[in-house]
Amino acid sequence: MKEVMAIIRMNMINKTKEALMKQGFSSFNCRKVMGRGKRKVDFSILEDVIVLDEFKSSKLAAELSEMHRLIPKRMVSIIVKDDEVSKVVNTLIEVNRTGSPGDGKIFVTDVVEAVRVRTGEKNELAL
Amino acid sequence: MKEVMAIIRMNMINKTKEALMKQGFSSFNCRKVMGRGKRKVDFSILEDVIVLDEFKSSKLAAELSEMHRLIPKRMVSIIVKDDEVSKVVNTLIEVNRTGSPGDGKIFVTDVVEAVRVRTGEKNELAL
Amino acid sequence: MKEVMAIIRMNMINKTKEALMKQGFSSFNCRKVMGRGKRKVDFSILEDVIVLDEFKSSKLAAELSEMHRLIPKRMVSIIVKDDEVSKVVNTLIEVNRTGSPGDGKIFVTDVVEAVRVRTGEKNELAL
Repeated sequence: MKEVMAIIRMNMINKTKEALMKQGFSSFNCRKVMGRGKRKVDFSILEDVIVLDEFKSSKLAAELSEMHRLIPKRMVSIIVKDDEVSKVVNTLIEVNRTGSPGDGKIFVTDVVEAVRVRTGEKNELAL
Repeated sequence: MKEVMAIIRMNMINKTKEALMKQGFSSFNCRKVMGRGKRKVDFSILEDVIVLDEFKSSKLAAELSEMHRLIPKRMVSIIVKDDEVSKVVNTLIEVNRTGSPGDGKIFVTDVVEAVRVRTGEKNELAL
Repeated sequence: MKEVMAIIRMNMINKTKEALMKQGFSSFNCRKVMGRGKRKVDFSILEDVIVLDEFKSSKLAAELSEMHRLIPKRMVSIIVKDDEVSKVVNTLIEVNRTGSPGDGKIFVTDVVEAVRVRTGEKNELAL
């Protein structure tokens, strides 16, 4: 079994969920993450919002802008059989590709055991 | 070493924490996740709350109900020695099994290295 | 490839981010987690804040203190090539070591595949 984790744009979560369910992957979880990729974020856009020069030079402003350099993202996690990984990965790419930086990344890791708590079913039966 | 991750009901986190500590597993972390399993969520219950037909057909309502189909859960993560995995898994099952769908799932993955930041202790010494 | 996950103090996230970027690791994500390590938290400090004896013996107080035993932390996740793991781990230790309990832990896991959504680039090209 494998865990397929995708870090995607916040506004893509519903589309992604629907696409996964359409492909038969109904079990998954998602969570908020803050992230950044290779590209620098352009904060000149933000600067228009902040008017006071005193504020701009303050320690608080520095901390705020520092924090904002991490962009809110969603991480979707789906655990599937080994032979389903490419289908999940392709579905995730199809839905989330806009062509602009920030589309996200997908990581695949090994899962050595899975258990459904209610029934005790193990591994592929638990997915 | 292994990471044991359990996705459980929100209201089970304290019981789970206590049970783990009683078994000697005092180190762990948990976080909010939104999730769904195989079963469809019954949203007819929610519909009673929403009275306005105009609201029901609105885009906002569609988005709200779509979002609500993901249920808030807690993910607990415990990193343990290989020979402790079954004890942790059994403890998690015992505490979290109610018999109703939504009890959650447990996943086990490999951890290749662990370090305690303060001391630099490695692997089993860092757990 | 490996995922290096570090559970660190909340107020260390900016320093950690900067140190990682200075070492050339610009891509990463972080999230809120609640955690506890081996050491007991000293709640006598908190007790000064709570004045009413009735409150202290109430069910709510018990639940609150129970919840508070989990400390808010940040989890940073960086995915890197195998031969970069020790550099990342050492950077994380250097920045986050204060010598006091609660400095955090680092875990390393295997990543079997990585994909950049926008371009479809795979594995080391996607990092």
